[in-house]
Amino acid sequence: MNIARTLSQNIFGKHLKMRIVQFKYGNDGVRIGVLNGDKVIEISANGVPSSLVEFLQIENPLEKLKSLAASSKQEYDISKVKLLSPITKPDKILGVASNYRCDCSKRNIPFPKEPTVFSKFASVIVGPYDDIPKSISTNAMDWEVELVAVIGKKAQHVKAQDAMDYIFGYTITQDLTAKDWVMRNGGQLVMCKAFDGFCPLGPCIVTKEELGDPYDVRLKTWLNGELKQDGHSENMLQRIDKMVEYLSSVMTLLPGDLILTGTPYGVGASQIPPRYLTKGDLLESEIDKIGKMSNRIV
Amino acid sequence: MNIARTLSQNIFGKHLKMRIVQFKYGNDGVRIGVLNGDKVIEISANGVPSSLVEFLQIENPLEKLKSLAASSKQEYDISKVKLLSPITKPDKILGVASNYRCDCSKRNIPFPKEPTVFSKFASVIVGPYDDIPKSISTNAMDWEVELVAVIGKKAQHVKAQDAMDYIFGYTITQDLTAKDWVMRNGGQLVMCKAFDGFCPLGPCIVTKEELGDPYDVRLKTWLNGELKQDGHSENMLQRIDKMVEYLSSVMTLLPGDLILTGTPYGVGASQIPPRYLTKGDLLESEIDKIGKMSNRIV
Repeated sequence: MNIARTLSQNIFGKHLKMRIVQFKYGNDGVRIGVLNGDKVIEISANGVPSSLVEFLQIENPLEKLKSLAASSKQEYDISKVKLLSPITKPDKILGVASNYRCDCSKRNIPFPKEPTVFSKFASVIVGPYDDIPKSISTNAMDWEVELVAVIGKKAQHVKAQDAMDYIFGYTITQDLTAKDWVMRNGGQLVMCKAFDGFCPLGPCIVTKEELGDPYDVRLKTWLNGELKQDGHSENMLQRIDKMVEYLSSVMTLLPGDLILTGTPYGVGASQIPPRYLTKGDLLESEIDKIGKMSNRIV
Repeated sequence: MNIARTLSQNIFGKHLKMRIVQFKYGNDGVRIGVLNGDKVIEISANGVPSSLVEFLQIENPLEKLKSLAASSKQEYDISKVKLLSPITKPDKILGVASNYRCDCSKRNIPFPKEPTVFSKFASVIVGPYDDIPKSISTNAMDWEVELVAVIGKKAQHVKAQDAMDYIFGYTITQDLTAKDWVMRNGGQLVMCKAFDGFCPLGPCIVTKEELGDPYDVRLKTWLNGELKQDGHSENMLQRIDKMVEYLSSVMTLLPGDLILTGTPYGVGASQIPPRYLTKGDLLESEIDKIGKMSNRIV
């Protein structure tokens, strides 16, 4: 089979979905790849960065990705590689609290009038199939499946009507949160989100063209096989274009920055009685068109 | 003059104070240096990182710095280089709110029982003499001079009695804050700290051995030549060892991470009437044994 030719046909015939990953093969360093069925096509070339955050800083990254995928002569069985978080070391991980209509209604809290912003540190990111440690410093480690928007280019004072130009694509996170730290000491929004491993991300980034309407995807969390969250992004209150406008009115958004867009009803704190994560739990997280993550609490 | 020999005598005779900088010469990239009077001694060698955050990740970074300084054959007049922030792209910038006794007393607020933690993004850092933009999105841009502790090695679940082993040294920041965003929408602690340029840092890192007692330094801010803050770190409430214990009980602190330790009385919001920063203002910030920063608001 002529891989390059087949891929070229796929890409330019629009059969190859742009599902972008970072991966490792053996003990080598991080590589960028594009998923093609059960294969990973490696994206590499002289002078091309091998991390996606850096890759997004070059001119027309999507066109470059497509052309490198089309000419790539290296592909791997997906079972032979380790999929990593598709974004590592972003400058910013930003999130918006209480951002789903269903969740606010069932919890009887008012819809926020503007985004309430929190953040996570880059070092908190782990891969889509990585283990996540249960820290001794929390007894209320909670799940929150979220659609994540990935910034594709530098954004300063962007208006909502132009904002979608600055989105590269989407991925999945579990915005893990220590609920016993949220209101501790009058409010510890940094600490409650910053435990090691509290941002599993992946398994891939789907480009915005490929995902289509971000307000038309289902988000699901299973705990040990039992469906706990089953929401739909039509319930998102602050929409992504408004978030980009709001955030970029204050700070410069950079390629690779992540915006966590909120979680639907069904987190551990809303179970009766509340159910938090413990060692041994298996957390699975799925969003339509993006894929499924699977993380074990250890 | 035999520079290497003189430096060697200075260093091993303990005359060369370990005041570490990052700088640029002409259009070249970032370099690490050690200040020696009005000279900057360049630290460089094959296989040695050229950013301080990466340098701190090698084994015994301080010994390596001293030995490279002693053998360096390259020095520059300080007037010929551009001093940058001594730390760029740290994983975390952490801060502690309301952490000076004098400030809490005069503002009539209770002393916090434990640290109230906030954070800033790495992209917000600017150099010690850089201009800082006045954003149209705030009308209450305030100054807060602070002693900054720089983490020297990976810290997880560290006890207070061991915590100072994990500190590499100290530098100065103005923890600039948009006071009109602090309580906006019920509290926007991420947004109020995240405006572009809100973390001038420098001019150097002084090692902990060189600084001595971190609770025995004066901190000063001048606005257009007028002294506005004149505090002393003996007033610091949550001490650095306790902060390291508290933070590292939740997250892994990494080399180059910054802990902003709070500001003494005299910020703009406490002036009568309140005085906030406007275009053209000159902000000067000094801490004993570290130096002085000078930033123009533009």
